[in-house]
Amino acid sequence: MSAEAAYEKLCEHARQTAVLATALNVLEWDERTQMPRAAGPYRAEQSAYLAGLIHERETDPARGDWLAELVESPLADDPHGDTGCVIRQLKRRFDKKTKLPQKLVEELTRTSSVGQTAWEKAREADDYSLFLPLLEKTIDLKRQEAEAIGYDDSPYDALLDDYEPGETTANVARVLAGLRDRLAPLVAQIAASDRAAPSEIITRHYPAEGQAAFGVQAAAAIGFDFDAGRLDVTAHPFCTGLGPRDTRLTTRYDEDKYDGGLFGILHEAGHGIYDQGMPPELFGLPTGDYVSLGIHESQSRMWENLVGRSQAFWDHFYQPLQRVFPEALADVSKEEFCFAVNESKPSLVRTESDEATYNLHVIVRFELEQALLSGDLKAADLPAAWNAKYKDLLGIEPPSDADGVLQDVHWAAGLFGYFPTYALGNLYASQFFEQAAKELGDLDAMFARGEFAPLREWLREKIHSQGQRYSAAELVERVSGEPLSPEPLMRHLTAKFGGYYGFGAE
Amino acid sequence: MSAEAAYEKLCEHARQTAVLATALNVLEWDERTQMPRAAGPYRAEQSAYLAGLIHERETDPARGDWLAELVESPLADDPHGDTGCVIRQLKRRFDKKTKLPQKLVEELTRTSSVGQTAWEKAREADDYSLFLPLLEKTIDLKRQEAEAIGYDDSPYDALLDDYEPGETTANVARVLAGLRDRLAPLVAQIAASDRAAPSEIITRHYPAEGQAAFGVQAAAAIGFDFDAGRLDVTAHPFCTGLGPRDTRLTTRYDEDKYDGGLFGILHEAGHGIYDQGMPPELFGLPTGDYVSLGIHESQSRMWENLVGRSQAFWDHFYQPLQRVFPEALADVSKEEFCFAVNESKPSLVRTESDEATYNLHVIVRFELEQALLSGDLKAADLPAAWNAKYKDLLGIEPPSDADGVLQDVHWAAGLFGYFPTYALGNLYASQFFEQAAKELGDLDAMFARGEFAPLREWLREKIHSQGQRYSAAELVERVSGEPLSPEPLMRHLTAKFGGYYGFGAE
Repeated sequence: MSAEAAYEKLCEHARQTAVLATALNVLEWDERTQMPRAAGPYRAEQSAYLAGLIHERETDPARGDWLAELVESPLADDPHGDTGCVIRQLKRRFDKKTKLPQKLVEELTRTSSVGQTAWEKAREADDYSLFLPLLEKTIDLKRQEAEAIGYDDSPYDALLDDYEPGETTANVARVLAGLRDRLAPLVAQIAASDRAAPSEIITRHYPAEGQAAFGVQAAAAIGFDFDAGRLDVTAHPFCTGLGPRDTRLTTRYDEDKYDGGLFGILHEAGHGIYDQGMPPELFGLPTGDYVSLGIHESQSRMWENLVGRSQAFWDHFYQPLQRVFPEALADVSKEEFCFAVNESKPSLVRTESDEATYNLHVIVRFELEQALLSGDLKAADLPAAWNAKYKDLLGIEPPSDADGVLQDVHWAAGLFGYFPTYALGNLYASQFFEQAAKELGDLDAMFARGEFAPLREWLREKIHSQGQRYSAAELVERVSGEPLSPEPLMRHLTAKFGGYYGFGAE
Repeated sequence: MSAEAAYEKLCEHARQTAVLATALNVLEWDERTQMPRAAGPYRAEQSAYLAGLIHERETDPARGDWLAELVESPLADDPHGDTGCVIRQLKRRFDKKTKLPQKLVEELTRTSSVGQTAWEKAREADDYSLFLPLLEKTIDLKRQEAEAIGYDDSPYDALLDDYEPGETTANVARVLAGLRDRLAPLVAQIAASDRAAPSEIITRHYPAEGQAAFGVQAAAAIGFDFDAGRLDVTAHPFCTGLGPRDTRLTTRYDEDKYDGGLFGILHEAGHGIYDQGMPPELFGLPTGDYVSLGIHESQSRMWENLVGRSQAFWDHFYQPLQRVFPEALADVSKEEFCFAVNESKPSLVRTESDEATYNLHVIVRFELEQALLSGDLKAADLPAAWNAKYKDLLGIEPPSDADGVLQDVHWAAGLFGYFPTYALGNLYASQFFEQAAKELGDLDAMFARGEFAPLREWLREKIHSQGQRYSAAELVERVSGEPLSPEPLMRHLTAKFGGYYGFGAE
């Protein structure tokens, strides 16, 4: 077979696998938004069967044969070119998938399912000991997984690579340590300020209908295409792709806390705009797929925080918002509203934390999960270590494990190496955003006029349309001219919170 | 392999195929109720790919081998027993599927797609000539299909068998001719009556929200389980099964004609109650599947017409309905409302016709499609033949082909042999209902008290739980002690419309 013919076959195979994978996404979206209660067990059978078909295709020896031929062919010469990117990324994925013994995959799946149930019970009972045996088993299996996949430096590398392909533990540790050392003093400075945000504004009454109407208006304004997507309500908000022109967002509305219905929608719309910005004709191929979870998160955090929580955004949107919620906002100035949605203070729960402290929550988890995996920290000692780190970095200690070490499902679900992508997303976002401002000019002035297209099109050109041609690290350097650094994020946080809380640049 | 082992494999294979088929149903339900506009082309790819996988499995030679062994084994001895039914029905399906050449299947699919587009255009332009070439081609392909499958008596047998398995053209023709000869005079008698239904009541204003609320209340009352199903809005109402405990109904609300939102919901709920009445543990096997389209329709028509349009039903439900629609119904008596929803008069459009005339619409189509297939009627002469039959049976003539021969999509979609199942559904429904009344006692008294469980449980025992153990004809005879006959339906229609329009039993 010629290399061209093998490449054709490989692409067809990958596209058909994506057809199945998106069909599975339809089942999962339906399960979380529409499915009747009693249908759960059969839906699990349907999903497991499709997942099995997808796994079979992804480890199909025919794919291995085409790839073996193609990596040696001229089509692979330019690793960032159309064909080279496809070959390199599919080879990566194939090698990784075929390295895992079937038995280990099954045990990981089973343990993740049992682990999540145990975690739920432990959290409800506020009893870490109910979760401990499952966590120990999970850590053991994740070590086996890392060994099976292989790594250069530390086992954590092999796991991190699932979410942030090509990234190394050492580099992430270096960047996040730098961030931690700069951020902890900033957070302390905010805590020491005598200014307080008028946070009571956020806990007034905001009818869900108005939240939905304004959310759709804002998401459409920043560029989410509702002809190729929709917005629904779920307990746990997410964004999923059901096809190249079918991106679905979800959110939740708390009528007595205006947060998820506002910034939650902008966040998910940011994810959605990334998906909608990839070339539809490349859907199912690495050239039409997202780079990493961190890069995906950078898009959601940029629209949520750097745009959505900026004063310029509200220069444009505050009057429309007041019209939607006249009772809650009639007596509130734009400046008060902006300070209220930018309140920063140390808190216990990551998902409810603000733009500044959020990263410290992530750093705690990143440091702990590395220690768990290396064996430096025993699972039995995790709650004490957790509480100590919170005390150290955030200055507060959880009164209970339910609000401490048991708050996130990730470790129960076997997601080791996932947490750092949340902080990486913030770092990438600021670094991209600074560069966009350099190239596009006064972004604030554009936002104040309701012009979001220039930023969106810049992101599309520089990031969305690139697919997986570059790794996250390469992309950051290519776009901004600099390797990843904590500086842009620190500059942004210092300027913003210095303004609100009354202290200058460090 | 032992017969038991082969049987095990066969059942597993069938259940897994059902997992894929229901996944496809999820995609189709989503497409019709939720999917964003721009997602259509990719959804078509997803659906076609899954349909291909299902077809591959249904014609898998391994299935043929197991079946060849099993039909000779003692497991097949009792054709109505658990194993015998499964083997017999899967063999039927396998033989039929494997008899059709792949090329013919593809051309049928393509022609159906092009045919529906041509039909839409022809209907919009009221120009039959735009549809004629496609209809001619479709008829030719359906003849080829019938030849490939084989038949005893007439090619129509082979097509009818897709929808009403095991039924013969001769028998359906005999029963429907009997019905026609009795029904046409009844319809003429109604038309000659000097009484008129107060139909203006139906075209008052009924807010959609109230229609939905009352529809859900009524569907739940007759026994549709909303924990294992749901109700949504679509342009063309349907009922689909996404799993053993996932039955989804759709309807449409016309605020200025209270019809679909009331009887449409009861109709779809009737289909849904049949699906929900089958044993979940047999889902995916013929013992847990519906008998025929006619039997399915009998369940929807029974709840819609024999129950929902009865005076006894409104003895229970009229006051609640008045409370939902105080403006429309405050000055309307229960008796007036019942007469209004039971208006009968000859009309042009099948889907808008009443309980009595409906069957004549079906008989016209059944007679014409047989003549088209046999060649006794040329497609070019169809409009004239259509109009003549409407004049003859209903006493009215369509002013245009759009309201005449072009009103239904079925022939454009290649569905020859489908129409009679609509009338068979009405015939089965009345024959079952008479028997239920004999066995259960005064059904009207039960309905008036809001008790629908006795009828529903009787249907579940006699019909739903039987799966495909018996053919429709066998089931009717087993349940009622008599072969299918027009008498029960005629007795019902004569009594009901004699009452409203003031004439006695014939």
